[in-house]
Amino acid sequence: MAQQADLFKKLVAHSKEYGFIFQSSEIYDGLAAVYDYGPYGVELKNNIKDYWWAAMVQMHDNIVGLDAAIFMHPKTWKASGHVDAFNDPLVDNKDSKRRFRADQLIEEEIDKIQGKADKEVEKAKKKFGDSFDEALYRTTNPRVLEYTQKAQAINDRLTEAMSKGDMAEMKTIIEDLDITDPDTGSRNWTEVRQFNLMFNTQLGNIAGEEGKLYLRPETAQGIFVNFLNVQKSTRQKIPFGIAQIGKAFRNEIVARQFIFRMREFEQMEMQFFIRPGEEMKWYDYWKQTRMNWHLKIGTPAEKLRFKDHDNLAHYANAAVDIQYEFPFGFKELEGIHSRTNFDLSSHQELSGKKLQYFDPELNENYVPYVVETSVGADRMFLAMMSESLKEESVPDAKGEDSTRVVMKLHPALAPVKVAVLPLLKNREELVKASTDVFNKLKFSFQCQYDEKDAIGRRYRRQDAIGTPYCVTIDFETLENNTVTIRERDSLKQERVHIDRIEEIVRQRVDMKTLLL
Amino acid sequence: MAQQADLFKKLVAHSKEYGFIFQSSEIYDGLAAVYDYGPYGVELKNNIKDYWWAAMVQMHDNIVGLDAAIFMHPKTWKASGHVDAFNDPLVDNKDSKRRFRADQLIEEEIDKIQGKADKEVEKAKKKFGDSFDEALYRTTNPRVLEYTQKAQAINDRLTEAMSKGDMAEMKTIIEDLDITDPDTGSRNWTEVRQFNLMFNTQLGNIAGEEGKLYLRPETAQGIFVNFLNVQKSTRQKIPFGIAQIGKAFRNEIVARQFIFRMREFEQMEMQFFIRPGEEMKWYDYWKQTRMNWHLKIGTPAEKLRFKDHDNLAHYANAAVDIQYEFPFGFKELEGIHSRTNFDLSSHQELSGKKLQYFDPELNENYVPYVVETSVGADRMFLAMMSESLKEESVPDAKGEDSTRVVMKLHPALAPVKVAVLPLLKNREELVKASTDVFNKLKFSFQCQYDEKDAIGRRYRRQDAIGTPYCVTIDFETLENNTVTIRERDSLKQERVHIDRIEEIVRQRVDMKTLLL
Repeated sequence: MAQQADLFKKLVAHSKEYGFIFQSSEIYDGLAAVYDYGPYGVELKNNIKDYWWAAMVQMHDNIVGLDAAIFMHPKTWKASGHVDAFNDPLVDNKDSKRRFRADQLIEEEIDKIQGKADKEVEKAKKKFGDSFDEALYRTTNPRVLEYTQKAQAINDRLTEAMSKGDMAEMKTIIEDLDITDPDTGSRNWTEVRQFNLMFNTQLGNIAGEEGKLYLRPETAQGIFVNFLNVQKSTRQKIPFGIAQIGKAFRNEIVARQFIFRMREFEQMEMQFFIRPGEEMKWYDYWKQTRMNWHLKIGTPAEKLRFKDHDNLAHYANAAVDIQYEFPFGFKELEGIHSRTNFDLSSHQELSGKKLQYFDPELNENYVPYVVETSVGADRMFLAMMSESLKEESVPDAKGEDSTRVVMKLHPALAPVKVAVLPLLKNREELVKASTDVFNKLKFSFQCQYDEKDAIGRRYRRQDAIGTPYCVTIDFETLENNTVTIRERDSLKQERVHIDRIEEIVRQRVDMKTLLL
Repeated sequence: MAQQADLFKKLVAHSKEYGFIFQSSEIYDGLAAVYDYGPYGVELKNNIKDYWWAAMVQMHDNIVGLDAAIFMHPKTWKASGHVDAFNDPLVDNKDSKRRFRADQLIEEEIDKIQGKADKEVEKAKKKFGDSFDEALYRTTNPRVLEYTQKAQAINDRLTEAMSKGDMAEMKTIIEDLDITDPDTGSRNWTEVRQFNLMFNTQLGNIAGEEGKLYLRPETAQGIFVNFLNVQKSTRQKIPFGIAQIGKAFRNEIVARQFIFRMREFEQMEMQFFIRPGEEMKWYDYWKQTRMNWHLKIGTPAEKLRFKDHDNLAHYANAAVDIQYEFPFGFKELEGIHSRTNFDLSSHQELSGKKLQYFDPELNENYVPYVVETSVGADRMFLAMMSESLKEESVPDAKGEDSTRVVMKLHPALAPVKVAVLPLLKNREELVKASTDVFNKLKFSFQCQYDEKDAIGRRYRRQDAIGTPYCVTIDFETLENNTVTIRERDSLKQERVHIDRIEEIVRQRVDMKTLLL
C-alpha cells in the first residue's frame, strides 16, 4: 500500500514535469480539484477520445454522434430529477468556517471505530501466529465485537438518514458521536443542509429565477432531449445509439485524488435506445462490449472487474461499474446502466412533446428503453497513466545497469509517435538529413525533432513521454539512406531504409489495429 | 440581398433536417443563442478541429497543444482586465420588462436616420437616371446633408460615451433621440448600466465572494497562466506557440444570426511567444499563414478579406480580422492580434510569480511578446456550411432536369466519407456483398450503409450531407467483384474493383492533402 501511494506521488510529479497535467491556475496557487492538460496530456486525451469515438460511432452503423451544449433549458434538470435530488449533505463549522460533507465526517468516524476492532485483531494475529483463526476471533472476542457492532449500528443510522434525506438526524448523529472539526477540534456545527451539486449561473437577458441556468452535471440529458431530432434526421431504427463526448460539472464539496474526481470533467457516453423488455439482453451485450474495449487497449484483465451497484439510482433497474485498480484501489472507471424509460418519459411529461418511436415491425408506438455506457475521459486518462508508468533497470550505453522511467502506453495512444534524432547536432549534414526525415514524417504523425544532449539522454526523454519509436540519423545514413529505429519497450534497434520508417511506425500506431 | 436571406433560411432549415444543428432544448421551446451539433454536425466540426490541429500543432515543431479547464482562478480575470472592462451597456424597459443593449438601440436609431438620407438619394437616382452624380448629390442636397450630419453627430456622441464608459450620457442620448421600446413603444427606461459579460457561478466549498468563479470568456488566458509550465516541460525555445481548442462563454444580452454569435462557443487559438520588437514580423507571418489555411480548404479568395481593427483593444498594438462573406455580409471569422506583453506582465504583477524567458542567444531575461491567432470553430463551421450548400440542376435517372441539394464540402471535412448502397434490398446476395464492403471500409472511414428507396433517392440523401463517394453494389459485382463509384461533384460514375475503393476514397479525404 505504501508502495502504491509512492507510485501515485511519482505519477503526479511525472505528470507535471513531462507536461501531461498541470494544476489549474498554478501561478495563483491553484484552483482546487481543477486541472489543465499539458502538451502531451492533450495528445493522449485526444487519442483516448478518438479510440472511443472510432470504436463506438465509426464501427457501429447504428450509433451516431452528438455534441450538445453545456447550457440547456433549466426544465431539463427538473425532469431529470437533478434539481430536487442531486444533493450532498453539507455542514459548516462556525469556528473554523470550514465546510464538510456530513456523511463523510460520519463515515470517517465509523472507520475509526472499525479501525480499533481491526487493531485488536492484528495484535492477536501477531501473538498467536499461524494457528490464529481470524473469523472465529472476530465473532467471539468481546472488545472486537463491541467495536464492530458499534460501527455497524452507526452505519445503519447513516444509511437510513441519507435515504430519507433526514438532515436533522444527520446532525444528531454528529452530536451523538461527538465529532469535532479535524483541524481545530471545534464542536460548533451549523445545521446539516442539502446542497445541490449543480453549478448555476444567470442569463443576462432575463432577470430573476427564469434566467437561472445550470452547468450540466451529466451529458446524458443532451442526448435525451435531442432523441427525436437525431432519430428523424438520421433515419435510424431501434435498436440504435447516440454517442457524445463532452464536459460536465459537479460542485463537489470535497474533491480528492488528482484528476479522479474533479469539479470539471469530461464524459464519453452512449445511450442505446431499445424496445421495452429487451433491456437485460442489451445490458449484458454492452457490459461485455465495453469490457473488451478496455482489454483491447492493453489493460490487464486482473486490474479490471465488474462491480454491481448496491443501491440503484431512481432511474435504473440494473447498474454495474467497470472498476480499474488505481494506485488507490479498485474504483469506478465506467458505468453501464439500464435506465428504463425514466428520462424520456419525464421529458415527455414536462415538455408536453411526444418522445415516442413508431416501431414498424411491432406496428406500435412506445417510449424506448435505454441502456447507457458512460466512461470518464479523465479517469481513463488516469488509468492509462497509472498502467503505463514504469521504472525499469536497463543497460546503459556502456552496458551497465541504469534506471529508466518509461511510459509503456499503447502506441495508438502515445502523444508522440516517432522522434527524429541526429547523432550529433554540430554536423550540418546530419542535421539536414534529420530535418528532411522529420519534414516528411510530420505529415503522417505527431513527431518530434530533438538534437540536444547525448543520444542516450534523448532516448530517456522520449521514454518518459511514451514515444514508441526513435529514429537516429548517423553517418551511415549519409552513405546509404538507412537509419536505426529503436522500439521503446524491447529497446531493439533495427537498421532500416528511410523509406520504410513510415510503414513501420504506422503498423503499430494506427488506431485501426484496435478496432478489429 | 433577398436571395442571400433566402439562402440563410434554407441553411438553417437544412441544418436541422439533415442533423447538422439543432436548437438547444427544442422540446422546451429552446434556449436562446445556444445550439447543439447533430450527428453530421459533430463529425464536420471534429474534422474542422482536426484540420486546424494538424496544420498548427502537428506541422509545426515549435507549436505544442494545451487543454486548460474552463474554470480558472478568479484572479486570472482581474489580471486580464475582464472583471473591470468586459462590459456591455445595458438598459431595461420598465413596462415591457425587456432588456436591451443601449449602444445597439442608439445604433439602430442612427441607421434609421442614415436610411432617410439613403432613401432620398435612391429617389433622385431613379429620377435622374444615368446622368446622376451620387457623390455630388450627397454633399449638396440640403435634406440629405441634414440627415447625414445628424447621424454622424449621434455616432460621435455614442463613440465618446462608450470609450469613456459614460453611462449617464448613454441614457441622455436615448432620451434626446426619444427612443422607444421597439415592441411596445414605451419610453419608460431604467438608467443605463455596465453589465459584465462573464457568466459567474459559486464554488460550493467556499462561501461568499472568494468562492466566485467565472466561465472563461476566452481561452487565451489558460495559455498565458500555463506559459512557463509548458515551456519548461517541452523545452521549447522562443519563438514558439501554444495551441488550444476549447469552449468559452459570453453572457450576450442580444445574440443573433444562428451559430454566428452564441452564448456558448468554441475557439481555436494559438498564442505565439516572441522576442519584444519582433512582433510585426510575426504578425505579418501569421496573417499570411492563416489566410492560406482558409484558402487551402477551398474557400474562394473573393469571399475572404483582411479588415484592420479601427479601435485597438487595451492589450493590442496591431489587430486584423480575416472576414468571410457570410449570407449576412462580410463578418469576422478569425482574428490575428499582436497582444504585446500585456497579459504575461499583468499575470506576473498580480501573481508575484516571474513569467519570464531566458533567451540564451541574447543572454537576457524578458517577458515575451505575443501574437495570437484566434478562429471561431462555430463560425468556421457556419462558413463551411454557407460555402458548400448548393441547389443545382442535374439530369435525373431518365436524363431529365431535376434539382438536387448538395453540400460541396471539401472531402476531408465531409461527415461521411463513403456510402455503400446495394442496388436492391430484397436480393440477399446484393445485401450480403454490400455488407461485406461496408464492414471492410468502416475500419478506415466514417461510412454509411443505406438500402432504402430507389438508388437515385439514396444518392440525393448522400448529396445533402456532402458524402464525396457512393459505392453501388449490383449484379455485376457478384460476377467480377467490381462496383460503381460515384463522385459527388462531377456525378461521374466509374467501375472499379472492390479492392481499389479504399485507395480511391483515401486519396481525396485524407487530411494530409491539406497540409502540403
